[in-house]
Amino acid sequence: MKFTVNRSYFINNLNSVLKATSSRSTIPILEGIKMVLTDEGLVMTGSNTDISIELLVKASDDLQIASTGEIVVRAHLFSDIVRKLPGKDFTFDVQEGNQIKITSEHAEYMINGLDPSAYPRLPEISDDQSFAISAKTLRELITQTVFAVATDNSRPTLTGVSFTFSQKQIKAVATDSHRLSQRVVGVDNGPSEDLSLIIPGKNLQELAQLIADADEDLKVFLGDSQVRFDFDNLSFYTRLLEGAYPNVDRLLPATSSTSVQFHVSDLLSALSRASLVTHVNRTNAVQMEIDAENNRVNLTGNSPDLGKVEETVENLGIEGKSLTISFNPDYMSAALRASVTDIVVINFTEALRPFTVVPNDNEIDFIQLITPIRTF
Amino acid sequence: MKFTVNRSYFINNLNSVLKATSSRSTIPILEGIKMVLTDEGLVMTGSNTDISIELLVKASDDLQIASTGEIVVRAHLFSDIVRKLPGKDFTFDVQEGNQIKITSEHAEYMINGLDPSAYPRLPEISDDQSFAISAKTLRELITQTVFAVATDNSRPTLTGVSFTFSQKQIKAVATDSHRLSQRVVGVDNGPSEDLSLIIPGKNLQELAQLIADADEDLKVFLGDSQVRFDFDNLSFYTRLLEGAYPNVDRLLPATSSTSVQFHVSDLLSALSRASLVTHVNRTNAVQMEIDAENNRVNLTGNSPDLGKVEETVENLGIEGKSLTISFNPDYMSAALRASVTDIVVINFTEALRPFTVVPNDNEIDFIQLITPIRTF
Repeated sequence: MKFTVNRSYFINNLNSVLKATSSRSTIPILEGIKMVLTDEGLVMTGSNTDISIELLVKASDDLQIASTGEIVVRAHLFSDIVRKLPGKDFTFDVQEGNQIKITSEHAEYMINGLDPSAYPRLPEISDDQSFAISAKTLRELITQTVFAVATDNSRPTLTGVSFTFSQKQIKAVATDSHRLSQRVVGVDNGPSEDLSLIIPGKNLQELAQLIADADEDLKVFLGDSQVRFDFDNLSFYTRLLEGAYPNVDRLLPATSSTSVQFHVSDLLSALSRASLVTHVNRTNAVQMEIDAENNRVNLTGNSPDLGKVEETVENLGIEGKSLTISFNPDYMSAALRASVTDIVVINFTEALRPFTVVPNDNEIDFIQLITPIRTF
Repeated sequence: MKFTVNRSYFINNLNSVLKATSSRSTIPILEGIKMVLTDEGLVMTGSNTDISIELLVKASDDLQIASTGEIVVRAHLFSDIVRKLPGKDFTFDVQEGNQIKITSEHAEYMINGLDPSAYPRLPEISDDQSFAISAKTLRELITQTVFAVATDNSRPTLTGVSFTFSQKQIKAVATDSHRLSQRVVGVDNGPSEDLSLIIPGKNLQELAQLIADADEDLKVFLGDSQVRFDFDNLSFYTRLLEGAYPNVDRLLPATSSTSVQFHVSDLLSALSRASLVTHVNRTNAVQMEIDAENNRVNLTGNSPDLGKVEETVENLGIEGKSLTISFNPDYMSAALRASVTDIVVINFTEALRPFTVVPNDNEIDFIQLITPIRTF
């Protein structure tokens, strides 16, 4: 196995595969990247058992193939070496006993490769169940929901985002049981029958990063316990979470008694000031006092140790009756940061009932739910 | 005590004082900044027992004084608050019971201040022993030596840089007993009698950062166990290290049998490649093979676990006899990064004797010494 490749072009591809390799794995071979060189090109595979990435670098002027073969190379070391090589190109040459000779200009490395037959196989996922989704849509669905997944493992299904794909729309929901984020988007060519799957939140974050700038469609392939996303020259595998996702529709309140509109930026900065003092408290609650009569909203953060902050937050209109409510400022801030409009509507019912944060545009089907905190 | 101040102007000053405050001190009052407001202006003091900084913000249009007084405010919280306030200005108003009211536009904080009489006094340093030094010169002396101080505490004096100030020159030396860096610069107005002091390395790093862009002279005041640097509106206090600094002059070799010139950048990149494999070894040694006959320098890094790297390093001339020597690549890299010239001369005597790295310009009195590693 021997090839010569343009270094910066190779680094770009290597960076994608590195996302799936862990530097310390309990399975030592997974600290490596499997490299399979055929006449078609170089296939690099990385896996951390949670996600796997397989990437094809096609033979071209930038990748010149001298002889085919396969090897596993220590990901971390290899990446460091490639980054520091002096030349524009480098040559990768596997010699006897899995020794790899890497040369670039006057520098020559001879590093120990690992046996490629010891590298585990990736799951085979048939083409039976597949459909396309635009990269932009998927990225939005992820970033607008993934922050709300549970971070503790007491209810494993809640650590993932629940997706329901149907012919005309995709619904994504995440909740940690204190707050919830649900986004629905319309699509043209969803799968012919409804499909539901729960994908671990942190795997989705990796996927969102990988497709950051992609503009085209991704192809989604469904396996039994895995799902694969194909785009560009790359396949992204993630395990699925088993179990039934709770039916959250019944949690969403149908009516409200108080509605306030805010500029996202106004409320965000007031919350960041209030949380400076509330973050030291175990309860971490800010109080919002909505005075419908005087059209005034006051925000208060309080900590017996440090002190207190109070301010009037600019509002763009109050409907309904006055109300005082306490909530976690971090949940509210996360909801606001996920907002797709500059102005949001917050709908309350009672001081101890969950309230919703929605865009001020009815066309956008995006609802966030936050459970208040009892402070008395 | 009450003042109104321009926020961004205040933050710049606050940042300097924060360098001396620790967020978790065993002396709780030192987590605070002492603020003393007189008609002249606001004096802010921060201290972490190792260094102290006292800074005067003069009364001006940017700092309007309503009433004088003093208070201690929690540094970390106060800094966070000031950064997040909504307005261009803010008002700081001390009320009964050390309560501090901070207002800016529609936001109002009420935080608990601390008793200013509980704040420790800074050492008094008389003006008897003082002299001036240019900020640029001091900064250079620090950055060219401080990296070589000892990081373990087995010989406390070696954790500092030894300075000898005399009328015509300043000498700075640091050594951790494996390598040494000594820089001598000429000055016009040194102190009339020779002064020697050892200043802790990490305190010097803080000082170098503080004077980063300063162009004027610093005034140095010597106390018994402390030294104070005055510049701009700021006084920087650091404790001194007690004890005698070893006489290092006798360590510097007078002759050499092999001299090689290198471009700093060539040798640095070759070392960074070699250390990729040597860093995993306990000995962390690279081998340099100087072949005087063929005018060739080879650098080799080797690790039984990972592999080996070997390369020819461009040299600008070899004088004397051939030699093979092993050394810690990190010490060599640090020496090269401190270099003030693009080309250095490395002078060797024997494979197991310390060697020196000096500028290729005889006018510059800067010598670095590195002890080789025995690899057989």
